Amino acid sequence: MKKTLFAALLSMSIAGLSASAMAAEPIDPIQPVKVDNPALVELGKMLFFEPRLSRSGFISCNSCHNLATGGVDNLKTSIGDRWAQGPINSPTVLNSYGQIAQFWDGRAKTLEEQAAGPIANPLEMASTHEMAVKVIGSIPGYAKYFKAAFGDAKVDMTRITDAMAAFEKTLVTPNSRFDQWLKGDKNAITADELKGYNLFKASGCTMCHNGAQVGGSSFQKMGMVRPYKTTNTAEGVKAVTGRDQDRMTFKVPILRNVELTYPYFHDGEAATLEQAVEIMGDVQLGKRYTKEETAQIVAFLKTLTGDQPKVEYPVLPPSVAATPAFNPWEPAKK
Amino acid sequence: MKKTLFAALLSMSIAGLSASAMAAEPIDPIQPVKVDNPALVELGKMLFFEPRLSRSGFISCNSCHNLATGGVDNLKTSIGDRWAQGPINSPTVLNSYGQIAQFWDGRAKTLEEQAAGPIANPLEMASTHEMAVKVIGSIPGYAKYFKAAFGDAKVDMTRITDAMAAFEKTLVTPNSRFDQWLKGDKNAITADELKGYNLFKASGCTMCHNGAQVGGSSFQKMGMVRPYKTTNTAEGVKAVTGRDQDRMTFKVPILRNVELTYPYFHDGEAATLEQAVEIMGDVQLGKRYTKEETAQIVAFLKTLTGDQPKVEYPVLPPSVAATPAFNPWEPAKK
Repeated sequence: MKKTLFAALLSMSIAGLSASAMAAEPIDPIQPVKVDNPALVELGKMLFFEPRLSRSGFISCNSCHNLATGGVDNLKTSIGDRWAQGPINSPTVLNSYGQIAQFWDGRAKTLEEQAAGPIANPLEMASTHEMAVKVIGSIPGYAKYFKAAFGDAKVDMTRITDAMAAFEKTLVTPNSRFDQWLKGDKNAITADELKGYNLFKASGCTMCHNGAQVGGSSFQKMGMVRPYKTTNTAEGVKAVTGRDQDRMTFKVPILRNVELTYPYFHDGEAATLEQAVEIMGDVQLGKRYTKEETAQIVAFLKTLTGDQPKVEYPVLPPSVAATPAFNPWEPAKK
Repeated sequence: MKKTLFAALLSMSIAGLSASAMAAEPIDPIQPVKVDNPALVELGKMLFFEPRLSRSGFISCNSCHNLATGGVDNLKTSIGDRWAQGPINSPTVLNSYGQIAQFWDGRAKTLEEQAAGPIANPLEMASTHEMAVKVIGSIPGYAKYFKAAFGDAKVDMTRITDAMAAFEKTLVTPNSRFDQWLKGDKNAITADELKGYNLFKASGCTMCHNGAQVGGSSFQKMGMVRPYKTTNTAEGVKAVTGRDQDRMTFKVPILRNVELTYPYFHDGEAATLEQAVEIMGDVQLGKRYTKEETAQIVAFLKTLTGDQPKVEYPVLPPSVAATPAFNPWEPAKK
């Protein structure tokens, strides 16, 4: 027994060493997800694509976090109920689990808490939690999925958001060329891409864009070295804390799949990766990259595109007479 | 050789007999689709889910013909560009191939012709064919899919709609309980459902709702026996022919998966199957069904729900700097 224990400890210690050897790079490979409760994930997928969670019956989570396009809508700011112009750029749902917080201003601690937000936001899905529960609870075809996920068919907001978060946790994108390189395949990226990565590190980008998500682990001021100019009125963390010094402080966005998640920044004002790199260099680091340097960093960033989640499009159970009716054009309630 | 030929002819003749024995029922089982060009279907699937075919970059074919919900949006009339209120109820894309024509008023002969319509309709996707070709043609990631489908990477409107139609042809829903019954499994439907089917036939419903699609094979006046009252201003076939006598004549809708494709009629004014059956009996057949009869017909109609298509949600290639920008809120062009 003692020998076995010692061997186990030794093997852990070697594993630890190997992990810290890898930690020599500020970016870690992203791990495929382990699913504990597949029934909960399946239900969460259905709810993620469920337009009846919106006032209109038209907008789902996937409308703005589209899994066909990097988990975003590729718009500066999102389209909401009655074509409302959203205040901020839609962050990707891919690899979003495990960040320091959710939303640009970090106002939700978890994916579960985040998922509840847009449903009741008048500029997004514009429903209410009460109505969401009433709608889903009225649909007999959901009962078996709630039973399989939770043991009984009760529908409440906690269960709805727990299921969504469980699905979202599965939305990881492993196996990017950069991760292959991190894991030892030195041919997985080109010489130019490697130059870009070295420049990315040397410039200080990895001070904030680090870890498995290449971001998402801290809040930073947008405009650290030089003020960032925008017409977007989002105040960042100040909206949560009320403190003036938190104005323009945002959660550092994830750079995984950044090739797919254009346009960039909280205001969506950088249309291309080249623009984003130049502006970041300028306002965060006080650097003016040459065209060649920018191209190298962009080349590196494109190696962060991983295998996109394989999602079988769900089939949603039909509404019945008891399901509240949807009228997208009814006048807004006061 | 002669013997073999004779045997073949005999076997064809027996097959023919068996087919006509089945044809004793006015409804035929729907057949699973045979795919000739899987690369064309794959491209078509991508384009079906492609929001960049719309002016806003937000609306795809799937927005109103949602494969999660019976190939429709379950709204009275559809939401289009800038939250436009569409003029008519979105017909299902499921089993839509092979109808006498497409659209409620039959203004497109084929799925290919149909697919071109909404892209350029200002109340729907509100783009133009020129812009659609420009956008898709600008996206380098599409080249390999066009090559695989067509032999080279050229993008034009014919190819776009050919691909969409090829995908749509695969969207059949075989194996409904009613089809199992048609094929000889007498336990596949209940006694009440069978009563409903017999009443459906005896009342004359199958005069129009017949064939594999249970509809879609003729145009009929809405309000044959008694005028149908609606505030919807759609004129039906008159809009195509200009002839007064074609006012309120519409293509007979498909009843496959009718449980999923609520609300009903061209104006979406019947919220439930019960209402739809009662109104049809009244204005088309001059019949007042008892509550029990209506329930039986509805029970039969629900046996028409088939296996929904299994669709792996596509991953779309990213836009590049050359791709025209999307601004959902820019003022409408005159």
